[in-house]
Amino acid sequence: MTSAATPAYRRLSVEERRGQLLDAALGLFAHRTPEDVSLDDVAEAAGVSRPLVYRYFPGGKQQLYEAALRSSADALNRCFGEPPVGPPTERLGRVLDRYLTFVDEHDAGFSALLRGGSVAETSRTSAIVDEVRRAAAEQILVHLGAERPGPRLSMLVRTWIAAVEAASLIWLDEGKQPPARELREWLVDHLVALLAATTASDEETAAVVGRLLAQETPEGPVAALARKVIPVVGEAAHLL
Amino acid sequence: MTSAATPAYRRLSVEERRGQLLDAALGLFAHRTPEDVSLDDVAEAAGVSRPLVYRYFPGGKQQLYEAALRSSADALNRCFGEPPVGPPTERLGRVLDRYLTFVDEHDAGFSALLRGGSVAETSRTSAIVDEVRRAAAEQILVHLGAERPGPRLSMLVRTWIAAVEAASLIWLDEGKQPPARELREWLVDHLVALLAATTASDEETAAVVGRLLAQETPEGPVAALARKVIPVVGEAAHLL
Repeated sequence: MTSAATPAYRRLSVEERRGQLLDAALGLFAHRTPEDVSLDDVAEAAGVSRPLVYRYFPGGKQQLYEAALRSSADALNRCFGEPPVGPPTERLGRVLDRYLTFVDEHDAGFSALLRGGSVAETSRTSAIVDEVRRAAAEQILVHLGAERPGPRLSMLVRTWIAAVEAASLIWLDEGKQPPARELREWLVDHLVALLAATTASDEETAAVVGRLLAQETPEGPVAALARKVIPVVGEAAHLL
Repeated sequence: MTSAATPAYRRLSVEERRGQLLDAALGLFAHRTPEDVSLDDVAEAAGVSRPLVYRYFPGGKQQLYEAALRSSADALNRCFGEPPVGPPTERLGRVLDRYLTFVDEHDAGFSALLRGGSVAETSRTSAIVDEVRRAAAEQILVHLGAERPGPRLSMLVRTWIAAVEAASLIWLDEGKQPPARELREWLVDHLVALLAATTASDEETAAVVGRLLAQETPEGPVAALARKVIPVVGEAAHLL
């Protein structure tokens, strides 16, 4: 029972065992909805008995699901960390690359979580999801140099995060098309466009955009977007 | 019992009675979460006995909640209808005004529904919400002259709808600030900015934007936005 051929039965510490069960659960919740995962499946994936799973998670599947979600939330929060150096849109691009890799690796579970209507969804799971959204908003505001934003800039960042979530779900529905790189570029363009449009109605956002532009380069995403949008503004000449 | 002073007890047809109970339930679900509404509350609000509520909704609160949601979804779908004449951003503004009036009138119920994690939320209620989102996307695409959109334009419209939902929830959280009119203007600007930015990576969107611009007026929202954003593009001169 302790040979290398049956590693699941070697003696593990409580924390190791808990981690092993959580990893097995995460693997299953990643590609199936909570409804489609049983504790037997988790026990089988971890190579242990069902009673052992219950010993560690006496609350059953719901407790295991919440622990797996907590672990995913921590992983997502780590994706958001990015040193505040270099052009802000390039930092954002790196964060989005990590985020889209996470979405790619957790597809069905990610969809089930954000879509709602799952039997496993409770006010506790919703609170964990909201905490991730808040962490994402805080990180973006750090890079925008606006840690204590006014209401308009705060709404801007939070609505853009909702748009990113929606785009991720659509991306999964569409068989992960367009390629992640194109989606990431479009999401960066989306935020830049939204910031630019909001300068029209909010002084704080105008100041943020001024500081951002000063940090961008002629090779970066803002410059590329500006070059492509200028002809469109030209088409609007009859309006001016 | 049939006097004008106790109208709830006059003899109603089955359909009238059902409508009366649904109206009472809608009034309660609008300002309280499903968790905080009991069948006793509904009976009291309608001025009838609890057994009568059960006779019409034998599935209890869940069935009543789903029927009330169905009725709200129909009301929202009616908000989205708008004749395809005049500048598209002005049509969109009128649709958003009706939508924000609905959000204003159904505040707590609207939040509970979209936030998820409610005990009353099931795959059936999620399906009704998704149907409303789909109807909203279809209407917007009619006004954009793109009833059968390619994947990028479809994603654009659906992500904007998610952003509108998020903005509505934030608006309710913030005590309905800014005023609905300002929020509506910002949401229109958001869509225009997103369309303009997406012309850079999608030919269909570029064609849509060309047709839209031809229908806008120098007094309309696109012209106002363009006048305000041009100085920002000027600040980006070092990037070009």
